[in-house]
Amino acid sequence: MTGDSEGDESVTLDLLKKKMAEFAKERDWDRFHSPRNLLLALVGEVGELSEIFQWRGEVPKGLPDWKEEDKVHLGEELSDVLLYLVRLSDICGIDLGKAALRKVDLNALKYPVSLSKASSKTHNNNNNNNTGSESA
Amino acid sequence: MTGDSEGDESVTLDLLKKKMAEFAKERDWDRFHSPRNLLLALVGEVGELSEIFQWRGEVPKGLPDWKEEDKVHLGEELSDVLLYLVRLSDICGIDLGKAALRKVDLNALKYPVSLSKASSKTHNNNNNNNTGSESA
Amino acid sequence: MTGDSEGDESVTLDLLKKKMAEFAKERDWDRFHSPRNLLLALVGEVGELSEIFQWRGEVPKGLPDWKEEDKVHLGEELSDVLLYLVRLSDICGIDLGKAALRKVDLNALKYPVSLSKASSKTHNNNNNNNTGSESA
Amino acid sequence: MTGDSEGDESVTLDLLKKKMAEFAKERDWDRFHSPRNLLLALVGEVGELSEIFQWRGEVPKGLPDWKEEDKVHLGEELSDVLLYLVRLSDICGIDLGKAALRKVDLNALKYPVSLSKASSKTHNNNNNNNTGSESA
Repeated sequence: MTGDSEGDESVTLDLLKKKMAEFAKERDWDRFHSPRNLLLALVGEVGELSEIFQWRGEVPKGLPDWKEEDKVHLGEELSDVLLYLVRLSDICGIDLGKAALRKVDLNALKYPVSLSKASSKTHNNNNNNNTGSESA
Repeated sequence: MTGDSEGDESVTLDLLKKKMAEFAKERDWDRFHSPRNLLLALVGEVGELSEIFQWRGEVPKGLPDWKEEDKVHLGEELSDVLLYLVRLSDICGIDLGKAALRKVDLNALKYPVSLSKASSKTHNNNNNNNTGSESA
Repeated sequence: MTGDSEGDESVTLDLLKKKMAEFAKERDWDRFHSPRNLLLALVGEVGELSEIFQWRGEVPKGLPDWKEEDKVHLGEELSDVLLYLVRLSDICGIDLGKAALRKVDLNALKYPVSLSKASSKTHNNNNNNNTGSESA
Repeated sequence: MTGDSEGDESVTLDLLKKKMAEFAKERDWDRFHSPRNLLLALVGEVGELSEIFQWRGEVPKGLPDWKEEDKVHLGEELSDVLLYLVRLSDICGIDLGKAALRKVDLNALKYPVSLSKASSKTHNNNNNNNTGSESA
């Protein structure tokens, strides 16, 4: 198959989970895919993702001044993190898509629109974390 | 909506991207969602994910001896990493689903089944990384 | 003892190593301090360190506009990373101070002053990593 | 100088701080060493450290079965993390040695010997973090 013909409208977490499971099975790699091995591999990929951004100072949204090859490299590192995250979830028996939808709902309850707008006004002056998807 | 009624067969990366974009817009958080802010938030969540596994020693697949509440907590941390990864990709203008499918194809070319099976035999005795989704 | 009376001129890595070893022994925690447990604990602390910087955008050197309590918190998170790094090195049988001095020497050979100055001129326009202490 | 003649009994954090400052100054790299650039570089090195451990499963203390070259590589990655941590602290105006001694004292107050020994008995069955150097 080729991914080039598809946008992510059609890409489910379940499809990636099945591709990763098949990939490992074909190569006899299941025995290496323990939860903590996969977690450390994920940390390694997050490190590679960070290296792309480490000497650039602040980066504007959309990466307007990046070379195409750098954007392609970024897409690969983001994908490596995603693929290990999907695999780790599968090996742990966690339904990642279901958990993610539930977490979005929990975040909506934790950060009501009105309060969040108010608190965000002084956001740069404090160290609160209420600007994304925090743990309950 | 409620995530509880859905499994991840139906959850696309695009759906999560739209939910995160809507979530930030409603709370006036877009101005805080710069690439490097989101990357550091992602690293923070990977840290919380690691804390769940840090004192457990090796953990068997499926987490047979984990309490239900610990599995729920794990699902939340895995989700936090995913949600920031999806948001970071969106803010950078990267089609994460498309990139992930492309990366799986690249990995298949990089790690041919036959060679990979052979190399995996001595896997524990070396430090190669050819057991997952490495960067090209 | 109190750390408040000392500056880091006098603090050796060996002193911290001994304090961490004594701390674990007194609490019967040695059995939990395996290499991978400590590595994941280190990743957890790096996550907490990142959370301090995650929503601030670029931060100027010296943190001129930070509240004193935020600087104290930062010092605690930097310390947590250091203490686990020292403990991990000790448990792995690595002489961290000796290794660090050797690495500085290796970096000096890898990045000669003249060449590095030249390459740094275009530094923001590329993604090279030659601005710090990279692996040989 | 050569680090090979010294063990870490004599290596202070202040010495490493001065060496890193001199290293950056000589190469005209100070302008790249902003707090968040250094933090992301640190995360990158933690990723490289994790890659060394990612496919090994549980690793015994002292790394008895590791090849000498793998131990040398480990020492280099541990050093890279340390050197960026020291540099980040310096750029932020934090006295890392002083902060680390203070943190050890805080941890001793937070985890009294008697209570910690008791709680450690059931350690593997819960997800508490009281086995190291946690933030206050």
